[in-house]
Amino acid sequence: MHSLDPLTPAEINLVASLIKKANADNTVHFKNIDLIEPPKKVLRKYLFAERNGSVPLPALPRLASALYYHRGTPNLFVATVDLDASRVTRIKKLESRYYGQADMDEVVEVRDACLRHPKVVDRIKSYGLPDNMTVVCDTWPYGRDSDQLNRRIAQCYLYAKDRSHPGYNSYDNPLPFSPVIDYLTKELIDIIELPLGSDHSVTPEVKHVHHVNKEWHHDLNSLPKRADLKPLTVHQPLGASFTVDEHLVQWQKWRFRVGFNWREGMVIHDVTYDGRELFHRLSLSEMFVPYGDPRTPYSRKSVFDVGDIGAGVAANNLALGCDCLGLIKYFSFTLSDSNGNPVPKPNAICMHEIDDGIGWKHTDGATKEVSIVRSRVLVLQTIITVGNYEYIFKWHFDQAAGLHYIIQATGILSTVPIAPGVKVPWGTNVNHGVMAPYHQHVFSLRIDPTLDGDKNSLVEEDSVAMPFDEENPCGVGYITKTNVVSTSGTSQAVNNRVHKIVNPSVINRISGKPVAYAIHSPQKQMLLAHPDSWHGKRAKFALHPYWVTAYRDGELYAAGDYTYQSLPDDVAMEDDSVNKGDVATWAKRGDKVDNEDIVLWHSVSLTHNPRPEDYPVMPCETMMVSLKPSGFFEQNPALDVPQSTQRMNKSVLFEEEAPAAGSRSGACCGISKL
Amino acid sequence: MHSLDPLTPAEINLVASLIKKANADNTVHFKNIDLIEPPKKVLRKYLFAERNGSVPLPALPRLASALYYHRGTPNLFVATVDLDASRVTRIKKLESRYYGQADMDEVVEVRDACLRHPKVVDRIKSYGLPDNMTVVCDTWPYGRDSDQLNRRIAQCYLYAKDRSHPGYNSYDNPLPFSPVIDYLTKELIDIIELPLGSDHSVTPEVKHVHHVNKEWHHDLNSLPKRADLKPLTVHQPLGASFTVDEHLVQWQKWRFRVGFNWREGMVIHDVTYDGRELFHRLSLSEMFVPYGDPRTPYSRKSVFDVGDIGAGVAANNLALGCDCLGLIKYFSFTLSDSNGNPVPKPNAICMHEIDDGIGWKHTDGATKEVSIVRSRVLVLQTIITVGNYEYIFKWHFDQAAGLHYIIQATGILSTVPIAPGVKVPWGTNVNHGVMAPYHQHVFSLRIDPTLDGDKNSLVEEDSVAMPFDEENPCGVGYITKTNVVSTSGTSQAVNNRVHKIVNPSVINRISGKPVAYAIHSPQKQMLLAHPDSWHGKRAKFALHPYWVTAYRDGELYAAGDYTYQSLPDDVAMEDDSVNKGDVATWAKRGDKVDNEDIVLWHSVSLTHNPRPEDYPVMPCETMMVSLKPSGFFEQNPALDVPQSTQRMNKSVLFEEEAPAAGSRSGACCGISKL
Repeated sequence: MHSLDPLTPAEINLVASLIKKANADNTVHFKNIDLIEPPKKVLRKYLFAERNGSVPLPALPRLASALYYHRGTPNLFVATVDLDASRVTRIKKLESRYYGQADMDEVVEVRDACLRHPKVVDRIKSYGLPDNMTVVCDTWPYGRDSDQLNRRIAQCYLYAKDRSHPGYNSYDNPLPFSPVIDYLTKELIDIIELPLGSDHSVTPEVKHVHHVNKEWHHDLNSLPKRADLKPLTVHQPLGASFTVDEHLVQWQKWRFRVGFNWREGMVIHDVTYDGRELFHRLSLSEMFVPYGDPRTPYSRKSVFDVGDIGAGVAANNLALGCDCLGLIKYFSFTLSDSNGNPVPKPNAICMHEIDDGIGWKHTDGATKEVSIVRSRVLVLQTIITVGNYEYIFKWHFDQAAGLHYIIQATGILSTVPIAPGVKVPWGTNVNHGVMAPYHQHVFSLRIDPTLDGDKNSLVEEDSVAMPFDEENPCGVGYITKTNVVSTSGTSQAVNNRVHKIVNPSVINRISGKPVAYAIHSPQKQMLLAHPDSWHGKRAKFALHPYWVTAYRDGELYAAGDYTYQSLPDDVAMEDDSVNKGDVATWAKRGDKVDNEDIVLWHSVSLTHNPRPEDYPVMPCETMMVSLKPSGFFEQNPALDVPQSTQRMNKSVLFEEEAPAAGSRSGACCGISKL
Repeated sequence: MHSLDPLTPAEINLVASLIKKANADNTVHFKNIDLIEPPKKVLRKYLFAERNGSVPLPALPRLASALYYHRGTPNLFVATVDLDASRVTRIKKLESRYYGQADMDEVVEVRDACLRHPKVVDRIKSYGLPDNMTVVCDTWPYGRDSDQLNRRIAQCYLYAKDRSHPGYNSYDNPLPFSPVIDYLTKELIDIIELPLGSDHSVTPEVKHVHHVNKEWHHDLNSLPKRADLKPLTVHQPLGASFTVDEHLVQWQKWRFRVGFNWREGMVIHDVTYDGRELFHRLSLSEMFVPYGDPRTPYSRKSVFDVGDIGAGVAANNLALGCDCLGLIKYFSFTLSDSNGNPVPKPNAICMHEIDDGIGWKHTDGATKEVSIVRSRVLVLQTIITVGNYEYIFKWHFDQAAGLHYIIQATGILSTVPIAPGVKVPWGTNVNHGVMAPYHQHVFSLRIDPTLDGDKNSLVEEDSVAMPFDEENPCGVGYITKTNVVSTSGTSQAVNNRVHKIVNPSVINRISGKPVAYAIHSPQKQMLLAHPDSWHGKRAKFALHPYWVTAYRDGELYAAGDYTYQSLPDDVAMEDDSVNKGDVATWAKRGDKVDNEDIVLWHSVSLTHNPRPEDYPVMPCETMMVSLKPSGFFEQNPALDVPQSTQRMNKSVLFEEEAPAAGSRSGACCGISKL
């Protein structure tokens, strides 16, 4: 077994049984069971030996962590288990300020408790729904709008839907009141009336008003389906170009390991290209979705989809011919439930190749000689469902040593009720009586670089016009100015600034400059919530697009280890092996980050002011971050890709006419005539 | 024949013969022969009637223009030909400040004149090239660094290359001197010594120094080709989903016409979706490539690739299985040479469908019901070769009524000589003795919208945080502020600003706001050359990302009709049917553009500071501008796309194992387990 392999069902069972044994009262309620990756120093030795085929590999500890409650009590415990020795090596009771995420078993319990509560039942009754409608409950993290919050609670948003088919839109009839339930006691704390007008006022006496529903389910939306879309299939008659050995993938000079855990979901480890180290670890560190409606309770409506729910927990079971097209490799994993039982996550990641158009082309102007290659891309994809929303996360590996992280948002908008005829400046009406508030999705992409080794730096490169002077007599000259970030902190995205990861000790023989990878990511608007708001204080990572810190083991999550109802946490805890604050805490250490083992945290922000076109289900909204070599190689890394030929590509002419001029079958390419 | 069909060979012959007849001296040297599209007012009536199947269609004039010299004379003439009446209706001699573009016949003559000139021959001889090397000549537009320039001349950049194979890299041995040739007289005006150091000084006595060449051609680069890339083919067993009638294309509710001319190349006309008008005309209006090296002669190095060369003239002959993959429809066209003879442009545009991943997906959290559709995209692609560079231009039509303009830069960097060991701040060394200067590519995308009619407006929409007050007690609220641009001029790209085209007279019943399309385009750094530099004055469009003007017939080109050695032209000419300035001139008119027939000019800028990885041939650098409905429809326009099914997609499992869990063959999709 490889040191980075995700936990096996047997290991999960072992952890659970050991924790239960250590807690005789038989009330253990697991929040999660997770692999503790080995310390980077020893892990890198291990990976280096493995890559170079040295045997035996250095022995590494195989450790797991367990986070759990005792049922009916508010105290959160974190334990460490030595899997080799089959013993619990550490149990710590966490400070009361920390809460565990809501696990799915608990969510089901709270949904039931909410919908069964007499007060809620009465309130629903008084709302006057037609008989064909039932009510469903979404349990949202309560968020935080005060420092007085001292119990773990759920904000329940209720929706009415037709009960005659399980696919009816669960978000098209938002109810105008929202129960608040205690996760521990399951008691009803409050029923909050929702504002229906354009101000903060509420109107509790409002009754259900019928409107024509908008349905996303293929059985239910009333539209005739398009009949003129012909099948398009992808074939790889000689098989895939990649090889897979358990979690090790090799493809077109790339070599990396696929990881997976309950929180981050898909993780990419130990990425090398043509034998050179590029990245030690790539992961979705956190994700924050704050809403822009200033009214209670929406003013606290926000969720850390990674820390509060878990990108691994929420991963879809991907299906052949639906979520991917072509020759597909699936990766399956195992997580655990609240009793510590293994829960299979089949097909949580799919991997396949796609054709991505032209890789490079040139035609010599004088001789008309042509070379052209197509661009083949290796795709690793995972999809998560978080309540109403879906997120698609993809890594694209290309043949020119480029690595691209693609985020797509789809699914259903979070909707709230609104009175007929009313419009608000912080949201869009998407159906009669249904409003979708403005919101943002801010993702934290954690990049642990190892460009030719683990001593790297972050460089800011700006293109700057030269002054209009004797050196620049025509006023057309411009140069690049670079700034090496020497101390941990933030970096801004300004006018065309390029952020580069460099290894100052390795000089490119052609350019004469340190080898580098550039981070290409469109300039975005960061968190719109005030920095002093609870959103701003709880999700500091969302305030700046780039953060750089000195690497420390265990610092994996941009908003901290425990995000549920989190209090701003700028101070390291007395026991810093448990909670080490958030990326802002670490950035403030003032660590030296020039030519050091650094970690980059890139915040990617999508300001989503909904369109009617995003409803009742949203066409994919796509963002991309590219990691591209920029002086890492001495020439085009894709120069050795074979020519594109009709013999290989077997394209077909639309008309049955004679092949178009220049289509020499099997030839490299047509002749370009200028 | 349709009124927008490109000129036929017969029509080109007719124009040429009529112009020659009208100029008895038999010395006509054609620069171009082009269709004059009918005035928009009558054309729209015609298109409306055509779309609605009215017969007979309104009669429209079929006119062509011819731009020409008389051989051996400097005077440029523009003529109008009535093709129906077979007569020349107008001939105008242009002011001497206007120059015609360099046509390919002329370029060949100048290349020969340059390389045959005794002084150039001697200078090459003294440079001491080895016997196996020959010299090639690239004729660059001279550009402009003074207002005294009053003859049409070419800046010749010379390169040595191995003569033993026609595919050797023409840019890997740039010579340190550059002849200047007069296009009219073919005389040698000057031989300019190029700076080889890090300052303006020159060293004429320098001799050729050998280095190991970097080769792009598949026969010549010494690398072993990758052997592990397996074939990937795309099949449409039931044929394409589109229909084509001459230049009319219909696909998935889209309907539009494909146009093509010598200057803009691919043009998209009369775009409708589901019968609703969206865009009257979409084209690449201009493109400017200025270099950032401040030294003579590079300080004037710049080219308008559309106006100085012609995107149609430079269009590649696309080949089956190389430039496109799958089931391909090709469009072929006809241009003309300097004698007015028709020149075929076979396969100048290819069209095909691609799978673009997931279109939309949702899984109901409680019932686990899933709907998913894949995204099919219709691609229209054209590729141009302009000397060293290639540009790929693609229109992507998607099923959610989104339209995407994709620009890819590939080919070879423009290189200059540099002394061994020298580095400069305005360029990157890409081989020993070879430097690639920083430069920008600024494209002007001309968008002539007709959202539900031709009365549209440009709106700037900003997302703005609300003040921290009693209306926004938690400091989390934000709203959108919109500004309708009322007068022709520019608009800036600032923090997440969204530019929308709206029809103020048509209100979306769901959102309650005017129907709109949003322009999504990453914020870029605009022209780095000083606004008062010749670059800045000749390419004003490149100074701002968005321009809006009131529509006028004939205003098609952002930098003006005649870009070759153009003088800044802010004043309308006395005969405004000939030259009407540039987009800055038109924007300054102060026309009313709110709820009017408007034109948008979007400048897309790529600041290209070369990487060694961009050499000896550049992996595609990609930019995308998206035109997406934003309250144009009342719900997701792709809601009626059929479900993705394995029955249709015929994907294959990587392993020969039993189908992975959830891969119900032919079923819609796997079940997602949270």
